[in-house]
Amino acid sequence: MASIRDYLFDTAFLDQSIDYLAEAHNLAVTVVDSEGMAVASRQPEGHDTPASRAYPFRFPSNIGGIVCAAPDPARLDQAEPHILYCLAALNSQLLRETELQETTEEMLQLASQMNFLVKVAKKIIGIDDLKKCYQIILEEIATATKADQGFIQTKGRWGEEIRVTHRMTEEEVAANRQSANLQRSASGSTIICTREDGASLLYSPIKEKKGLSGQMLFIRTGDHRAFSASEKQLVGIIENIISPTFETLRLYDSLQDLYLNTVKALAAAIDAKDEYTHGHSFRVAKYALAIGGELGIDSQQLNDLEIAGYMHDLGKIGISELILSKPGKLTSEEYCLIQKHPVFTDKILQPIKLPAHILDGATQHHERMDGTGYPLGLAGADISLFGRIIAVADVFDALTSKRPYRDALPVEEALRTLCEGIDTLFDREMILAFISALRSDRSKEVLGAINIVLRHDDLQNLNQFLIELTAFAMNANRN
Amino acid sequence: MASIRDYLFDTAFLDQSIDYLAEAHNLAVTVVDSEGMAVASRQPEGHDTPASRAYPFRFPSNIGGIVCAAPDPARLDQAEPHILYCLAALNSQLLRETELQETTEEMLQLASQMNFLVKVAKKIIGIDDLKKCYQIILEEIATATKADQGFIQTKGRWGEEIRVTHRMTEEEVAANRQSANLQRSASGSTIICTREDGASLLYSPIKEKKGLSGQMLFIRTGDHRAFSASEKQLVGIIENIISPTFETLRLYDSLQDLYLNTVKALAAAIDAKDEYTHGHSFRVAKYALAIGGELGIDSQQLNDLEIAGYMHDLGKIGISELILSKPGKLTSEEYCLIQKHPVFTDKILQPIKLPAHILDGATQHHERMDGTGYPLGLAGADISLFGRIIAVADVFDALTSKRPYRDALPVEEALRTLCEGIDTLFDREMILAFISALRSDRSKEVLGAINIVLRHDDLQNLNQFLIELTAFAMNANRN
Repeated sequence: MASIRDYLFDTAFLDQSIDYLAEAHNLAVTVVDSEGMAVASRQPEGHDTPASRAYPFRFPSNIGGIVCAAPDPARLDQAEPHILYCLAALNSQLLRETELQETTEEMLQLASQMNFLVKVAKKIIGIDDLKKCYQIILEEIATATKADQGFIQTKGRWGEEIRVTHRMTEEEVAANRQSANLQRSASGSTIICTREDGASLLYSPIKEKKGLSGQMLFIRTGDHRAFSASEKQLVGIIENIISPTFETLRLYDSLQDLYLNTVKALAAAIDAKDEYTHGHSFRVAKYALAIGGELGIDSQQLNDLEIAGYMHDLGKIGISELILSKPGKLTSEEYCLIQKHPVFTDKILQPIKLPAHILDGATQHHERMDGTGYPLGLAGADISLFGRIIAVADVFDALTSKRPYRDALPVEEALRTLCEGIDTLFDREMILAFISALRSDRSKEVLGAINIVLRHDDLQNLNQFLIELTAFAMNANRN
Repeated sequence: MASIRDYLFDTAFLDQSIDYLAEAHNLAVTVVDSEGMAVASRQPEGHDTPASRAYPFRFPSNIGGIVCAAPDPARLDQAEPHILYCLAALNSQLLRETELQETTEEMLQLASQMNFLVKVAKKIIGIDDLKKCYQIILEEIATATKADQGFIQTKGRWGEEIRVTHRMTEEEVAANRQSANLQRSASGSTIICTREDGASLLYSPIKEKKGLSGQMLFIRTGDHRAFSASEKQLVGIIENIISPTFETLRLYDSLQDLYLNTVKALAAAIDAKDEYTHGHSFRVAKYALAIGGELGIDSQQLNDLEIAGYMHDLGKIGISELILSKPGKLTSEEYCLIQKHPVFTDKILQPIKLPAHILDGATQHHERMDGTGYPLGLAGADISLFGRIIAVADVFDALTSKRPYRDALPVEEALRTLCEGIDTLFDREMILAFISALRSDRSKEVLGAINIVLRHDDLQNLNQFLIELTAFAMNANRN
């Protein structure tokens, strides 16, 4: 059921037209809808109107028309030029309304695309994790296009694949990646097509200066309508405008990786000078990561903690290898020099504009909770968080590593030794976090990378031991 | 002079209206424009029409109206309801046209903003230099808003100012930065205002997640019209959408800086182990930069060359300081070990996914053009560009530095020694570039940073010497 009232902007003119025909030409006038029902009418007083004629509106679909009635057909003939003029006026307005509505729709669509872009842009400001950005954009596009599923796959700088998914299993992603359409869209054009099961698919390439860098797929499952041209356009515009951010993020991501790896490689080279410290910085970084992860530190901070871990013994470059790997007892002079390595680390890193928490983490791992550490004798919370974490990681690795004068200690003994230093030497929270990390599945990946085999007194009952140790550590040294 | 014809979409209906009034009501009908000139008329045949009445169109401005004429006023009175209905039909259409034109303009504006965004986004894809990106965006906005002048100022991560200008002198920038409006827009809103001299100013803040990071200013000088609300809106939208790219670029920029500085600091620490190589890597990097600059290498590649320069002796971590700083003659075994330092550099850097040209540059500085170098015995073009550059830089620094067994050589003698090795040991092009760098003003900044005083045989005639040496180097050893 459609009526001209739904299509005219100015319905006052419709009423005016009926009045005009009724008053000036003495007609009974009824505007009817597509089903012939009256939506407006004027009946002149004082006479019957048995003769009537219908004049449908000119419109792409049936929206009814005007029915004019008079006492006899001759009166209708007489009034016809006026009726036709009225109709022409209304038809002319209807024609314009159709044009207008199309334009308005186009505009609303453009405006909503623009709003969408601004919204997405605001959401990804300040996020320096490539994958997180892709995930946000995926979710936003999926919502805007009412897609049930979707994925974005793209390459990092080193060719590794980055993939984010929206309500899709690995199997579904794999199945859709085999599709010939994905290959076609790889040629650079956005494609809408229908899957055998009736689902509507929207494939779009992700381009960068050098060419194709990835693809997006959005899926509307069978019961919903297919993707529209305007949704295809939206995805294309987003891709175009977001690309520079992606490309820069990719560069940033790879440089961050390179930075971490370079510091790691150099730390490894320095450790390697002494067979007893081989791999030390690497393990300290990993233990620190395990503690940090347990404390719930965010991924950017964990990245910085790892860097601080690799950097903590850089200062050993400044100490002769003769002293570092001296088999016998050190003279007090030599010991004094060794104690200077955090100062040397600081001296090396000072000229770099390194974030303070990394620098502090790298240089405070020999500070102790009661202020008996070195080089500054800081105490308690004056020692930075990273410093307190790396202190625990550093001592644990020293204890569980072989030394010229002793074998590597079993994990249990190393942990007991750490617990003896709770509050006096080490931060209780860091020790509890480390024990918790050793028990948790979350740390398996981090600790699995450790490049020495840790000795245990009793590996089978390690978990029980850790539970008991936690209870002990929670109460140890408390007054 | 304005006429209804300029404002109606459907002028056919206008003609139809005139015909209707003339035919159905026997009137002389003239449509007149704002100045009373006829733009259309219908004259019924067979009678004069001395009585006339004008009916102006209802429109925001004067666009004329309809003049109806008849043999006498009574006939006009009789026709008036019909005339008024016609006028109502035309007025209703005019009202809609006005609405429509506003909507269309809005849409065209939105569409052009969207196009503009896509265009700018495509231009900045793949550019990883923050300043270059700002410059492109500044130029694009200035063009789009027809601004005569403009600048963007913002802060890098370390608080240093980044500024790009469009047709503005330093003095003009400084004068406009003092303005109270710049302070007002710092509160976060875009402002259009007029300067005392009549110029139109458009200030816009640049925001990021943490708050204000900079500002933009665009200026239209006196003779042009003031900035419009839509231009203000355009600048706001660009700012919103481009911000994430800026923020990421800023991060990337600062990380690149951090990377360079970290490698530099570590190289310095390694060099410092031996008093005779103190500052060596730094100087080699700077000499390499001077050669690279002379060869016209782009800024990103120069950055990589500098990194390779800092890295070239990292492998010395793996060699005992006893051998490195041994005062007397080395045994052949010791010499053999020292020759391994590029291999150690390679071993340290291999696990890092370093771009190949950096790795090659760092490890090939002891390769020689005739294949007599080490560790691989590469010859000619098989040695990478960076390797050939750093070889010249490395030998020049070795010759002009003090050694346990000799004083530092004067620059002239070092250069003569290098020239003797043209084609056999060193790449002629690199030596010519280095001599050219020593003569050019361009290299002053790079070479001015060198941290030792170079000795000269005859500083006053250095330029003459370099000219003669260039002539010699261009022909030396040629068959």
